[in-house]
Amino acid sequence: MEMKNTLGNYLIEQLYNCGARHVFGVAGDYVLRFFDDLVHSKLNVICTCDEQGAGYAADAYARLNGLGVVCITYCVGGLKVVNPVAQAYAEKSPVVVISGAPGIKERKKNPMLHHKVRDFDTQKKIFDEVTVASTVLSDPGTAPREIDRVLNAAQRYKRPVYIELPRDMTSEQVTHQYEFREMQEKSDPVALQEAVTEAITMIHAAKKPVIIAGVELQRFGLQSELVKFIEKTNIPVTSLLLSKSVISERHPLYLGLYEGAIGHDFVREYVESSDCLVLLGALLTDINLGAFTAHLDQGRMIYVTSEKTAIRHHNYENIYLQDFMYELMRANIKRQELKGIQHQEVQPFSPVKGQKVTVQRLFQCLNSFLTDDTVVIADVGDALVGGSDLVVHRRTEFISPAYYLSLGFAVPASIGAQLASPSLRPLVLVGDGAFQMTGMELSTIVRYHLNPIVVVFNNYGYGIERPMMDGPFNDLQLWQYSRIPEIIGGGRGFIVKTEEQLSEALEAAEKYKDGFCILDVHLDKYDMSPALQRLTSLSAKRAR
Amino acid sequence: MEMKNTLGNYLIEQLYNCGARHVFGVAGDYVLRFFDDLVHSKLNVICTCDEQGAGYAADAYARLNGLGVVCITYCVGGLKVVNPVAQAYAEKSPVVVISGAPGIKERKKNPMLHHKVRDFDTQKKIFDEVTVASTVLSDPGTAPREIDRVLNAAQRYKRPVYIELPRDMTSEQVTHQYEFREMQEKSDPVALQEAVTEAITMIHAAKKPVIIAGVELQRFGLQSELVKFIEKTNIPVTSLLLSKSVISERHPLYLGLYEGAIGHDFVREYVESSDCLVLLGALLTDINLGAFTAHLDQGRMIYVTSEKTAIRHHNYENIYLQDFMYELMRANIKRQELKGIQHQEVQPFSPVKGQKVTVQRLFQCLNSFLTDDTVVIADVGDALVGGSDLVVHRRTEFISPAYYLSLGFAVPASIGAQLASPSLRPLVLVGDGAFQMTGMELSTIVRYHLNPIVVVFNNYGYGIERPMMDGPFNDLQLWQYSRIPEIIGGGRGFIVKTEEQLSEALEAAEKYKDGFCILDVHLDKYDMSPALQRLTSLSAKRAR
Repeated sequence: MEMKNTLGNYLIEQLYNCGARHVFGVAGDYVLRFFDDLVHSKLNVICTCDEQGAGYAADAYARLNGLGVVCITYCVGGLKVVNPVAQAYAEKSPVVVISGAPGIKERKKNPMLHHKVRDFDTQKKIFDEVTVASTVLSDPGTAPREIDRVLNAAQRYKRPVYIELPRDMTSEQVTHQYEFREMQEKSDPVALQEAVTEAITMIHAAKKPVIIAGVELQRFGLQSELVKFIEKTNIPVTSLLLSKSVISERHPLYLGLYEGAIGHDFVREYVESSDCLVLLGALLTDINLGAFTAHLDQGRMIYVTSEKTAIRHHNYENIYLQDFMYELMRANIKRQELKGIQHQEVQPFSPVKGQKVTVQRLFQCLNSFLTDDTVVIADVGDALVGGSDLVVHRRTEFISPAYYLSLGFAVPASIGAQLASPSLRPLVLVGDGAFQMTGMELSTIVRYHLNPIVVVFNNYGYGIERPMMDGPFNDLQLWQYSRIPEIIGGGRGFIVKTEEQLSEALEAAEKYKDGFCILDVHLDKYDMSPALQRLTSLSAKRAR
Repeated sequence: MEMKNTLGNYLIEQLYNCGARHVFGVAGDYVLRFFDDLVHSKLNVICTCDEQGAGYAADAYARLNGLGVVCITYCVGGLKVVNPVAQAYAEKSPVVVISGAPGIKERKKNPMLHHKVRDFDTQKKIFDEVTVASTVLSDPGTAPREIDRVLNAAQRYKRPVYIELPRDMTSEQVTHQYEFREMQEKSDPVALQEAVTEAITMIHAAKKPVIIAGVELQRFGLQSELVKFIEKTNIPVTSLLLSKSVISERHPLYLGLYEGAIGHDFVREYVESSDCLVLLGALLTDINLGAFTAHLDQGRMIYVTSEKTAIRHHNYENIYLQDFMYELMRANIKRQELKGIQHQEVQPFSPVKGQKVTVQRLFQCLNSFLTDDTVVIADVGDALVGGSDLVVHRRTEFISPAYYLSLGFAVPASIGAQLASPSLRPLVLVGDGAFQMTGMELSTIVRYHLNPIVVVFNNYGYGIERPMMDGPFNDLQLWQYSRIPEIIGGGRGFIVKTEEQLSEALEAAEKYKDGFCILDVHLDKYDMSPALQRLTSLSAKRAR
């Protein structure tokens, strides 16, 4: 049926149809009318302190919800989200950037309108580098189809897209076929059959197959398929840092995180001695490969992602990850006999009286604190590296920028995560350096009545850099993090120096559900988790 | 003489030769070695909380010092400064971006190294859109010449440049001719003579010539030439918002700010009835032209900038602003007879007991508070628009992003401004919305013992947008701005609600020189300066 609508409302409708329920952003004059449309729509508008925060929130929302939206004004807003959007590109998170812009009619004779950098298309050119599709909605006649094309690309590739909305187009009437066109691409059936047959033959011939489950299984909604497959075949599974919690870390077939020389020896030995490595949706990044200390023999490898399908040393074309997974599921694979799998034990934490908190003990304590209702959001630093040892209960409940490694993600990400999954309470792990970048988005958390528990790893600087090369550039001004609630009008703060204080603070935080809690955990300047010790000693060698 | 040096130290040497004494940034593993070089060099390293703050600080430093440097790590740092650098591009501020990057040797076979977005050159491509020159120092043989080329471009065009330093190049030995190559471009002498002769003829024939002094006079170091010229010829001068304080606003020949229908009637009438408009280095932006309410007759215009020379309706090629100014100076121009110039009077401020502070009265008070040692830094909003009425004592002492209009500039800019001009004390005017974006860089101010006076215009939201279109997107969470000193370990805070409290707080701030002062000035949600009232009513019409 042909329908009429304003362009702004058509865009809103299609975002809703793609599953978005929230839009993160900061207003500005070129996008005011669209913000007005938004607040009168079915979508909820979440205004952050700075656009950077909105970008991170939209990324985290996209990871849990399947699509995230950030809406900002032209250049002064848009160029502040280049970094969060680049992160979403690198780590495959479908974030839709909607930027207001000068009206098409205003652009005649190329005037110097405020917020313009060089040309009117400067911002679009920049976003072309960090998105998979982009459009300027300059014509009401083509706008609906353009919107559909770009939103489809976000869903197809699980990567960011850019939509520029000139302010004089927002209220233009558009006519459109009211249907959402799903992507209908299919794999080459013959190539698919050949690849799956070869893969199954390899798995059958193997004595010790193992699955390395990558982040794309989460992004493409294939987590249930993974669980069904391993439960049917009894093949054990490991994950990488970026895909941590792609499967419940308490699943009996879960080996633990594979991180090359940085991770646990049991997992490393199990994986590296396997005669059939099935990598599904896994990104082979330096961090995922334990700073390239991983030893994965390509001659034993089945490697399937959304971008590449390879078995041993040959590649297949035109095979989609989803189709490969479905065919693998349907195949009749013999059940493996399993022995000797070790599971990481979570010990109950008993605080030692008067004992200063160490990073190692902090993680032991946090591990025992996790429940089925916790989503862990780790910022870059020991929060992430040490956090790899946490045992996450369910799935997609460990969120971090484990490849792109952009500091300042976690606090604003918790806004997006909790709005996407209101039944979960975020546990935010953040270093003091990362906190000083974006931590004041706690203000947004108060404003929208969210209640994460924020643990600040206060080690007086960029602890992760000290072992590589130390100097005053790794130091920070000391903040009284626990007193931030007094500034922003909500939340509760705790100073934690001893193990007892840690236990008490977490207990109090668990009980206090009306707002956020922030724990200022004082750690020794040079203390770090065992995993970080191994990583930095390797990185230091490389930096030299 | 041919000399040997490491690449890192050569870069430092040339930055120093260009006048840089400070480098603003945040460290990261790809740039650690260069940070180590920096802290052992003649340059001072200023580490901000977030890269965004470093970008703004470098921009303000560049405006006062002639060159600013921001040094960050690859992508996760670099892409955070795209917006400040875009601002520097738009407003002609020579900022050098130095970004660490993966080593050239590490890039072989295109591995997925952390911080990489798409390709290794993604970041460079993005900066190509917002800089006038860029280079990747991938070869020690060409690196010195590349550095010279790029730094020359920053000085020639007064716009940002981009230098990418792969980490394995930092300590490479380079051989170079140790001399700094100045830009030697000269105007076409015949064209220059023809243009200047025509301009002088026009000025001589005019009854009421007026000079509109633009921001490029400051950027290209031509302020003294301007003063000499007007004092010799007795031609009065006006400035635009972006060039406010290009000349002392207490100079007898200064008419005031020209802002079309938004500014003062006397200036408007004087300028628009002039029969010879001499625009020198002026950018004709929407804001500079009072939201395009300016009426400047091209048929009476001499228009010279670094990019264009036009008299009436014809253009000249290959003429440089500097050369034009020097020739104009040398010419024998008759002295004008002047009458009827009005000067804006600064009234002493007497607080009315119990009176709530209004925006208008706040500016009256601030006006009487300015001294010869004040540099005013205005953020976007009424801080800027209302701030246009301040009478600045000396020159280049009003700094603002008056064309690009990026919120969050002022607090971090004060770091750069005070380090560039240590004899000046910054008076920062910042709205609550802008403050919530970058205000925590006060932490950096404490760390480096600076002492700006920060006036927060606390009107509970984006006051400048409310008259255009209001909604919850213009609201902010209320912060206790005056208590931020308690969080970051320095400074003094004041709550200001009445005129008496305002006077007392400013008096106390003047006396307290050991750190920053922050005044949380509570204003009515809908209150605004008369200038902003005029601007927003015009913008509202346009947004509809």
